[in-house]
Amino acid sequence: MTTDLAGLATPTLLLDHARLTRNVSRVAARARTLGVRLRPHVKTHKCIEVARLQAAAGMRGLMVSTLAEARTFAAHGFDDLVYGVPIEPGKFAAACTLAAQGVRLGVLTDDAGVPGPLGAVAAAAGVVLDVWLKVDTGYHRCGVPPDGPALVALAEGIGAHRALRFAGLLTHAGHAYHARGADAVRQVAVAEREGMLRAKATLAAAGIVPPSLSLGSTPTLTHVDHLDGIDEVRAGNYVFFDIAQATIGSCTREDTVLSVLAAVVHRDRGAGKLILDAGGIALSKDRGAVDLDPATGYGELLDLDGRELGLRLDSLSQEHGVVTTADAARLDALPVGARVRIRVNHACLTAAQHAEYVVHEGTRVLDRWVNHRGW
Amino acid sequence: MTTDLAGLATPTLLLDHARLTRNVSRVAARARTLGVRLRPHVKTHKCIEVARLQAAAGMRGLMVSTLAEARTFAAHGFDDLVYGVPIEPGKFAAACTLAAQGVRLGVLTDDAGVPGPLGAVAAAAGVVLDVWLKVDTGYHRCGVPPDGPALVALAEGIGAHRALRFAGLLTHAGHAYHARGADAVRQVAVAEREGMLRAKATLAAAGIVPPSLSLGSTPTLTHVDHLDGIDEVRAGNYVFFDIAQATIGSCTREDTVLSVLAAVVHRDRGAGKLILDAGGIALSKDRGAVDLDPATGYGELLDLDGRELGLRLDSLSQEHGVVTTADAARLDALPVGARVRIRVNHACLTAAQHAEYVVHEGTRVLDRWVNHRGW
Repeated sequence: MTTDLAGLATPTLLLDHARLTRNVSRVAARARTLGVRLRPHVKTHKCIEVARLQAAAGMRGLMVSTLAEARTFAAHGFDDLVYGVPIEPGKFAAACTLAAQGVRLGVLTDDAGVPGPLGAVAAAAGVVLDVWLKVDTGYHRCGVPPDGPALVALAEGIGAHRALRFAGLLTHAGHAYHARGADAVRQVAVAEREGMLRAKATLAAAGIVPPSLSLGSTPTLTHVDHLDGIDEVRAGNYVFFDIAQATIGSCTREDTVLSVLAAVVHRDRGAGKLILDAGGIALSKDRGAVDLDPATGYGELLDLDGRELGLRLDSLSQEHGVVTTADAARLDALPVGARVRIRVNHACLTAAQHAEYVVHEGTRVLDRWVNHRGW
Repeated sequence: MTTDLAGLATPTLLLDHARLTRNVSRVAARARTLGVRLRPHVKTHKCIEVARLQAAAGMRGLMVSTLAEARTFAAHGFDDLVYGVPIEPGKFAAACTLAAQGVRLGVLTDDAGVPGPLGAVAAAAGVVLDVWLKVDTGYHRCGVPPDGPALVALAEGIGAHRALRFAGLLTHAGHAYHARGADAVRQVAVAEREGMLRAKATLAAAGIVPPSLSLGSTPTLTHVDHLDGIDEVRAGNYVFFDIAQATIGSCTREDTVLSVLAAVVHRDRGAGKLILDAGGIALSKDRGAVDLDPATGYGELLDLDGRELGLRLDSLSQEHGVVTTADAARLDALPVGARVRIRVNHACLTAAQHAEYVVHEGTRVLDRWVNHRGW
């Protein structure tokens, strides 16, 4: 096995080990400072080795985005999991199977039709499921409003079933990804926290005490002023960061962990163009920060040592990435066969395009870690 | 194993078997009518079973988009392969390894620096590689112009090495994907064909006869008036088609083969919104036809029998797809737990998000076929 980046096949997903451990430590410390438990969202990496680093840094449980992730992490000894997509009847049995294996499995709901049938299936399976009530604090994807009767009715619905344990209130301020700059993100973070406290008060007026309040996203965790009254914070992307997060202001470009190694397969000096062998499959076609900064393109080019080349990907087809530049010297330095690294736009989606991470320190290959994809 | 779509996990990639075989037969017949050999591009499906259907319909060789595809198809007895991304020095050894295993492996180049070193590596490995000279007939991604000295110099460069066999001229009119309507596609197709004949004449003036002229794309193959003087046509997407191809006019929506089975996980009647458990990973974030038709969104919703529901995906996050509608009756019919199918925007990219195809006829599951992803 090669021990140097230059000898790897292309395209290959690279993971910078030193930056990963730094991000994991820093955000774990941030959660401790804020006085909240950290429950990382492993959808970003789907990787046992990364979760072990997070565990060593003091995380408390994981959130997963698929039941396949739940099964994989459970099989590797992680026994406190929350499944982050609202549960629906077609997944009740699979959730109960996991719970029957000794996993503390939390599920989410915001639908009045769910607790009754879910409670019946769980009771029949002889298990107890944690059920989190999903609250909408402004993202408007899923969740019920923090004020009003739907919240109370759902909490009562969950509480009515002996096979369901009301775990608390949970929200995700995904709209922080559309905020520009620290102040705008902080406003979202404050609204996320205050929405949760309002939801708690709504339940309190009905005599219900939610055991836990859980919120979070990488941008809001970065910029929030305090989390008084909140028990748990969830964030995923922070392990890797990416151009989108740097554009939002959650990190700098020097914190970004993932890049895709690629080869120059075509050079046209007259047209000022390079073609790389990394396209829409190797990178994903997510443009991430482009709405915030049109200069982002589909990724930024680095040399093998990680230095910026001042070039970016302008467009992608399936296995081709297009770079254009008027700088003749840059073109001269990148003949067919040259290797570059592409700093990725949206780490979660790029990672999911690859079966494994090649872990490196500088230009030296340290290891290969599996990305547990699928559903 | 379930035998009905309704019992499958979600999200799952579905493949309509009857439509697949119809598309395979129809395009094979089209190539025969045009008097050209058909070399399908298997990047669309990466699937042995689909390639076997294409072989039974009379294809002559395959094109692959990755060396991983080349190795997989070679291991399953397909011995006439062309690797469709321009070859670069980092892949010379892998190409020669395949050739040494008895595969007739064609590679592409448009770079004057490639034939010499490639010929040396092939000679040292004791193999002969087919080398196609890539011509740019208007797509402007890769290739040399059909007129002028670069074409002649490259052909001479290939011909100078005993371990390289000049296979001919090859082009791809990828810009047909940006054409609107049959007439516009036909213009691209005519330019593609005429560019190749011009390139042949350029070589003829230098005393060089290219053994073969190869061109193609699914849209141009659909609409071209004739292919006189052309030997081989390549197309990939036609096995599956998709919304993008329907928008271009290569097919109708009734020809589309792939859909993603998904579940409703959230419904908000007040906001007129559904959330499905299929997002950017299950579908890819490719918008395909959106530049041509903004109404396309990220996919169109069907019921399990394939009937249109009049709904589309407006946005995607990692594992969530957002559908909005003002139609209360449609919302009423789709409670949390309901199953829908999502007709895909760009079949090649969606397929590459999944490890397997669930093959179905109507709502009955027939088989599961592996998608050989990776590099």
